[in-house]
Order: sequence, then C-alpha cells, then structure tokens
Amino acid sequence: MTKPAFEFNLLATDGQARAGLIHTPHGEIPTPAFMPVGTQATVKAMTPRDLHDVGASIVLGNTYHLYLRPGDELIAELGGLHKFMGWDGPILTDSGGYQVFSLAQRRKVGSDGVTFRSHIDGSEHCFTPEKVIAIQENLGADIIVCLDECAPADDYDYNVQALNRTHTWAQRCKAAKTRANQALFGVVQGGVFPDLREQSARFLTGVGFDGYAIGGLSVGETKEQMHAALEIVTPILPTDQPRYLMGVGTPEDLVECVARGVDMFDCVLPTRTARNGSALTRTGRINLRNARFADDAQPIEPGCTCYTCTHFSRAYVRHLTTTNEILGHHLLTVHNLHLLLTIAREMREAVLEGRFQTYRQAFWQMREQPA
Amino acid sequence: MTKPAFEFNLLATDGQARAGLIHTPHGEIPTPAFMPVGTQATVKAMTPRDLHDVGASIVLGNTYHLYLRPGDELIAELGGLHKFMGWDGPILTDSGGYQVFSLAQRRKVGSDGVTFRSHIDGSEHCFTPEKVIAIQENLGADIIVCLDECAPADDYDYNVQALNRTHTWAQRCKAAKTRANQALFGVVQGGVFPDLREQSARFLTGVGFDGYAIGGLSVGETKEQMHAALEIVTPILPTDQPRYLMGVGTPEDLVECVARGVDMFDCVLPTRTARNGSALTRTGRINLRNARFADDAQPIEPGCTCYTCTHFSRAYVRHLTTTNEILGHHLLTVHNLHLLLTIAREMREAVLEGRFQTYRQAFWQMREQPA
Repeated sequence: MTKPAFEFNLLATDGQARAGLIHTPHGEIPTPAFMPVGTQATVKAMTPRDLHDVGASIVLGNTYHLYLRPGDELIAELGGLHKFMGWDGPILTDSGGYQVFSLAQRRKVGSDGVTFRSHIDGSEHCFTPEKVIAIQENLGADIIVCLDECAPADDYDYNVQALNRTHTWAQRCKAAKTRANQALFGVVQGGVFPDLREQSARFLTGVGFDGYAIGGLSVGETKEQMHAALEIVTPILPTDQPRYLMGVGTPEDLVECVARGVDMFDCVLPTRTARNGSALTRTGRINLRNARFADDAQPIEPGCTCYTCTHFSRAYVRHLTTTNEILGHHLLTVHNLHLLLTIAREMREAVLEGRFQTYRQAFWQMREQPA
Repeated sequence: MTKPAFEFNLLATDGQARAGLIHTPHGEIPTPAFMPVGTQATVKAMTPRDLHDVGASIVLGNTYHLYLRPGDELIAELGGLHKFMGWDGPILTDSGGYQVFSLAQRRKVGSDGVTFRSHIDGSEHCFTPEKVIAIQENLGADIIVCLDECAPADDYDYNVQALNRTHTWAQRCKAAKTRANQALFGVVQGGVFPDLREQSARFLTGVGFDGYAIGGLSVGETKEQMHAALEIVTPILPTDQPRYLMGVGTPEDLVECVARGVDMFDCVLPTRTARNGSALTRTGRINLRNARFADDAQPIEPGCTCYTCTHFSRAYVRHLTTTNEILGHHLLTVHNLHLLLTIAREMREAVLEGRFQTYRQAFWQMREQPA
C-alpha cells in the first residue's frame, strides 16, 4: 500500500460545526461532505464525469442492492466497485441494514443476524455481521459500515432489544474485518430516546471505530427529535473522527446538522426529486411540471453555476419533464446535487473562516424569499 | 447577417461517393454527415456537450412533435430552437410529413394540406405547406424541409397522386418561405417506382432548392429497392448541392448509400436501440441484456474510443440495462452515436484520399466477424 490509510484531520470548529479532511486510499474528502447515493453502482442519471463536475468527492453504494444485483462476488471478480462503476474517488458502502428493514420481505431478526427475502425475486438470504463485512470487502469501498438494526424510532422496548443486537453485531463486524485498506464505521442507534442514544454512542466509542454513523433518524420523527438526538450523540463521539448522519438530507437539514457537529451526509432526495420533476433551490423546492414555468426563460436557480442553470431555461426543463425525457431527469439531478454539494462546500469555508453562524443565518433568510 | 449564408462545397468524389462541407449560420457540417435525431428538442439521454463529444456537427428536430409540444410559437418567443435546447451548432427540422403519416390519427389529405389529430391529446390540426414553413421559421433551424406526403412505398396509384401533391406543396413551400438565413430542401418521393422517382427528382430540381431530401425509403422495402431508387435519383440531383436520405440508417446503410451518392442521414436507430439495451458495433448488433455479458470485462466494442468504451465494461453496461438504470440508456446512446458519427467521418476521409472502395470492402469484411 503506497496510498495513505484512512485518516481524519479536524481543521477547524465553529461552535459545534466542524471542517475537516478525510484521507482514503482513493483520495480526500473535504468535510462537511454530501455523498450522492449510487444505489445500484450508479448515481442515477449521472456519469462519473458528471459527478466530478458537480463537485462530488465521494459516492455511496448500497450493499443490499449490490449484493442482490449484480452480486458482490462478481464485482470483486471484475476488480471491485470503483473499477466496476468507473468512479476513481472514495466510496462508502452502507451495511444493508436499512434496506433489509425497509425494502426486503418476510424479515426474521435473530441474535445472529437477519433473514429476508429479496424484493426483486423473493429469494431468501441471510445477513449476519460477518456476511455483511465479507460483502463489503468484496465490493472494496474505502469506508464500510457495521450491520445495524433500524428499529421504529418511537418504540422504546423494540429499540432496547434492537440496540443490543446492533451493539453485538458491531463488535462482531469489527472482529470479522480483514482488509487493512478499508475504514469501518459503527452505527449509533436508539430511536428518539435520549438514554438509548447516549448508551449507544458510549458503547460504540468504547469498542472503537474509524468513524461513527448515526442511523435511525430522518425516518418520520420530528426535526426537534432529530436535533435532540444529535445534541446528545455528537458531544460523546471522539472529536478526531468523522460523524456521518445517514439518510439526511435536505439543504436545511445539512445546515442544521452541521451546526450540531455532523461531518457527512447521504440522501436520495436530490436524485429522487429530480426524477419527479422537482428542483431544490436555496429559496425552496419548485416543481418544474407547474404550468407557470412554461414560458419562463430564467434558469432553474438564477445565479447557480451548474451546467443546467448556465445552459437551459426553466421552460426547457419543464418541457423535458412534461414529455418525460431522460435529459430532464439528468439536468435536474445535476442541479440538485450541485446545490447540496455547494452548500456543503460553503459551510466548510464558513467554518474555516469562523463565520458559520453568519452563514447559517443568511441561509435561513434566503428561505423566506419566494421560490 | 454577419455569418455566412448556406453554402455547399463538394470537395472530392470517389465513384459516386462524395466528401463535402456545408456552411450554415451556426457552423459547418462535414459530409457525409449523420444527424442524431432530437425529436422533442433533445437527442434522448444526451446533453449538447455529450453530442459535441461524440462528434455530432448537426442535429435534427421534429417539426410535428415540436409544433405540438411545447409549440413553435413558444420556442420562437424563447429565442428559437438553438437557444431553447442549448445546441449552438446547425439544426435541421423535418417537415412533419412523415410523422403526420405515421403517428397522427384520423388523417385527411387534400390538395391544400393534411388535417390530423394529435397522437398526444387527440386535438385537431392542419398542416398546409405554408403552415409548415411558418412553423419551421418559428423554430429557426438552419435547414428546413418542404411538406411532403409519405405514401405506402409499393402502391403505384397512390404514389402518383401523393407525388402530385408533394410537388405542388414543394412549390408552395418555396413561395411561402420568408427567412433568408434558412436553407430549404425539397423532398424526392415516388416509392419503389423508378419512373416516379425520376419524375420527382427532375421536377424538384426544376423548381430549385438548396438541397434535396430523399424520402419514403427505409419504410419496409428491400435493400435492393432502396439502392435502385438512389441509383436513379442521385445522378439527376445537382452535384453542387447536398443530398439527404431521410430516416436511414444502420452502419451498413450509411456505407452503401454514401456509395450511391448520399451526403446526409438521420435515424433514430442508434438512440432507440440504445434504450432497448442494444449496442451497434462494426461487427454487428449485440444485446447487452444477454447473460453472456454478465462477467465480460471487455468494453462494448474493443478499440472504440467513445467515453463508454474507454471507461466501462460490458458487464457494467449489462448490469445497468438489466436494472433499467438511466445511465445504461445514456452510455449505450453515447456508444451508438459515436459509432455512426465515426463511420461517417471515416468515409469522408476515405473519399478525400481516394480510397472509399477499399474502406467499403474493409467495412464488409469486419461484419463477417463474430460480434
């Protein structure tokens, strides 16, 4: 290994907000970082070149999906996920836990792991901590994640049991890991319950991981509950390791969760809303299918420097959306990802320059303007 | 107008094959030229940047579709088709005739024009020669085309009547045209009938246009019939004007029709087959859905210099295709267009260097190799 192993440098803090740099075998990740989601070894409607252009430094792959199709062993045989999808930057794979608990059918959770049926063809599979590590070692991402159980956020008794399993599984994942060039993140769970969140953060930091994911949020709880959970968890986590809030978020979530000490995010929102014809903007969401955009010569977001906004009008994107053209999905995905990646970069600069609170205030003032 | 008006320079011939250069207000078109089809103001799954990358010098827009959605008047209001779709190179719009006779419902053809109902919402519309010119003047393409009637290729009596209408409409289109910065092409019709094809070519060259489209071919007739029609028509057409064979074709059609004096082509084949999961190659067509590509680490076409072939394996493209990912449509479209545009460019070089017959022979030898 000539490339540097995994390392996190905390460069600056401003309140709880942090600016850092993660080193991986496939390059650096400036934080705060937003990770576009490449569920099936592709960020939907985007080439790797497009991803570089919008400013992505890392992408996420879904272990559950890639295990089912085309299969982690096939990907290993073809040289690993980076080579397979033509992305030479850092990759994080999740544990598959969230998908097993949201997509798969006929789940049975036991202390050893979880059996489930594929949502694609109904075939039966079993994820144990060891299996999930083996799959992620085959995929070869720079950052891999421990198997966790994502419980209903507001069921205390369920969360107690699920948390015990998640903690045991985390220890087994750490023990099962064999590759030195992959970083392993534990996953803090505990629903909306402060005592469980605290217990989970303390337990996992006691085991010791390269970084900490925070799971089971943005699943239906209120913003206040999400913020409260973060305010308990992040102060417990080591300052010299990255914190990754899974499945979040919106532009406003990014700002408010960076303000609460989060470094990394992923979410399907920018890519999924794009395919529904909607654009994220600094002033709010707009649906390009709306007839009022039919003759609107402005770009989606005036002032935006993305390829879409510098080349095309709202009227054109609306036309593509109403005619269901693939290019419409692409152009909206470009804009939406560019916006989240730009906000992450702006927050980083603000923290480095000690003006994060000013940035945060300005961000919220923008949102009160009409979209 | 500071930009040059329409002009065609015939640079070399080799047998009937020709190499030329078309000058338009939006740039030059080296010929032989393949024109990617941008039906709804987008070449499906391709940005204008992608089109430049694969080597497109001109794209086609469909008058019928753009008239219905978003409307030619709206496009004019937004600055014309070039600005609307963000393509600053040459554009050709067809007359809409082919779509009216293949897509629209409840057609009624009279001497004045054709009434039809939209295939989208059933609304009633009428295309007269004057209307079709007005629409194309609103769209603002560099090359526009006369309204023609595309008759069943093998019905002689129908073709006689349709040809009379097509000729009268061509005269009316020429008379109706008001913009000096658009070239107008007449459309030679006549089905598979040598006497009608000759009559049409002579009539239209007598009227005089900036170039000549050849329509009503590649609609079910045999290759021999298509070639025979070209062998009658192209020798009649003026050598100092471009000839455009509409709706053709495959790689082999390009080679054989250039050999018969054609300069320009358009076809949905490369973009449509891409969306069906198929790749065009020099040795034949391959369907990436085929299980034999599941672990194939080779590019779609070894030696191909397109973005897809230089970055991704058949296994990856197959995975994208079987999971119905948008990126699969895009990557196959890139490859297929790149192949046709490369073949067109290679033929041009071969004609310029007096070795077209050698090129043609080598092309056919390649096709006997296994795909």
